[in-house]
Amino acid sequence: MQPPQIEDLRDAANRLVGRAQRTPILESPLVNQQLGGRLLVKAEALQITGSFKFRGAYTKISRIDPETRQRGVVAYSSGNHAQGVAAAARFHRIPAVIVMPRDAPRIKIDNTRNYGAEVVLYDTHDQSREELGECLAYERGLTLVKPYDDPEIIAGQGTTGLELMSQARELGVTLDTLLCPCGGGGLVAGCALALAHESPSTQVLAVEPEGFDDTVRSLAAGMRLSNAPGARSFCDALALPRPGEITFGINKRLLAGGLAVPDSATAAAMAIAFHHFKLVLEPGGAVALAAVLSGRIDIQGKTVAVICSGGNVDPDLYCRILEQHS
Amino acid sequence: MQPPQIEDLRDAANRLVGRAQRTPILESPLVNQQLGGRLLVKAEALQITGSFKFRGAYTKISRIDPETRQRGVVAYSSGNHAQGVAAAARFHRIPAVIVMPRDAPRIKIDNTRNYGAEVVLYDTHDQSREELGECLAYERGLTLVKPYDDPEIIAGQGTTGLELMSQARELGVTLDTLLCPCGGGGLVAGCALALAHESPSTQVLAVEPEGFDDTVRSLAAGMRLSNAPGARSFCDALALPRPGEITFGINKRLLAGGLAVPDSATAAAMAIAFHHFKLVLEPGGAVALAAVLSGRIDIQGKTVAVICSGGNVDPDLYCRILEQHS
Repeated sequence: MQPPQIEDLRDAANRLVGRAQRTPILESPLVNQQLGGRLLVKAEALQITGSFKFRGAYTKISRIDPETRQRGVVAYSSGNHAQGVAAAARFHRIPAVIVMPRDAPRIKIDNTRNYGAEVVLYDTHDQSREELGECLAYERGLTLVKPYDDPEIIAGQGTTGLELMSQARELGVTLDTLLCPCGGGGLVAGCALALAHESPSTQVLAVEPEGFDDTVRSLAAGMRLSNAPGARSFCDALALPRPGEITFGINKRLLAGGLAVPDSATAAAMAIAFHHFKLVLEPGGAVALAAVLSGRIDIQGKTVAVICSGGNVDPDLYCRILEQHS
Repeated sequence: MQPPQIEDLRDAANRLVGRAQRTPILESPLVNQQLGGRLLVKAEALQITGSFKFRGAYTKISRIDPETRQRGVVAYSSGNHAQGVAAAARFHRIPAVIVMPRDAPRIKIDNTRNYGAEVVLYDTHDQSREELGECLAYERGLTLVKPYDDPEIIAGQGTTGLELMSQARELGVTLDTLLCPCGGGGLVAGCALALAHESPSTQVLAVEPEGFDDTVRSLAAGMRLSNAPGARSFCDALALPRPGEITFGINKRLLAGGLAVPDSATAAAMAIAFHHFKLVLEPGGAVALAAVLSGRIDIQGKTVAVICSGGNVDPDLYCRILEQHS
């Protein structure tokens, strides 16, 4: 399938007006002072449903032809994509079926149901969510809304990058670097497309959790590589087996590279976000911020943006992290 | 002293461009659904220094004549005003002396020092912070930046209201009601001035913690009344003895009334802000949200805005609250 074009991102941005939150750029004079540079935090955790996933889901659903759309959509996700699709379906007043693992956090299952979606639980050990999703799509005539490997989803996520560039212009700054969390690669691919057009001098980097650095290694190898089975990270939103096909095609062409951060650095970044930005971040949403705050990216004398992509975190985990890093 | 005019608020807004954060309006489809109305959350905890106090402090300091300003400023505060003044002084490259209670939270003292301010500690039992502040002002030729009872401070805080109205226009909505946290009354007075001009049909209400409902009772009595000595609330930012003179003059004229909320409702609102808005709120910053979420204000079929005014909360307290309300 063809990757989306800048016109597709612009079209997505128009569809999202009045639906998605225009999430702010946050800055802390204290943090800037410590880093010796200017750090712009794109607070995408403040998006409807608590993550950027709403942008792609809404864009995708809005582009299905009305007759087909009326029959409904199906998606598989353990968290953020589930809530994004459920909320986007609700805005369109169509049914949504979400396939979720039986052991997903209760709060994410409840939220997805509260948006009016039907939740179908499956066992992660002996069922394939992809097969279950496709089976439901076929049986009930539903349209499958993939989590990342779809041009319209990528275009939707890329509106985060368009919005960031518009805000950078309002601030009168040129970005040296943009760091973006990377799981399947939809968000970073979309943002890279936006910046390739709007700010070609900005280098775009993917940030992954250690153990799930499939995109970093794939970029180095020039081909899609998988993560070792049994890898662990508390960044549940980014713990995917390997890069998407369409997303990797874009990322290979447009990214300046990538880097991986340990969970300890991510936890410290979540605590800084609490103290200095008053922003609730989930682990997967904090990896790009962690790359800068842990000194893995030196921003001395530079202007660097990080996307903080989600905030759907369990309060117990959140408080354990605050306790360790206060 | 004369209260500020709408022109003073506009002037303050111009001074704050590129300095203060334009804080977003957040909305949650799930929360709206539960309330049966439209709740707009003005996320002022995302302001520089974590509270609206930066707006007033920066406005005040920017209006001191340059020669006097160069000598520096002094302020007394246990928290948010301290950080606001310290950061605003830093932007102006002038010295700041902040008088803080010896038992203020370590983090607030440290942050104030990190902004480059000199912190003078005093004993709450046997020293008056007002006297100490005025003494320092006299001895060192510093300008005293009062926390609320000053027309220029009120004008600065009122820019929150101007900004909210501009955002409401962008959303195409008319506000039925605005609820605003109230301690000394500077924020609500400034916002009431803004709305009296920009949206006279909107009723503006002050929200206080139970035990510190001095403005509520003063509005009813038509004169300034004090809180009972020994009153307690975990809303440290709002725990003041009685309304300001200038602020009460404005509030008496412009507010539709006020109401008090118990700390338990405020704690529950902080947890909702974590889960549904990904916003870190301190107790004093959450009282207006609490008034709506606890059902004290019915927003069925209405569009209501609440200002969430600050997020400087100790992580231990924050986590105790999340634990109790999850």
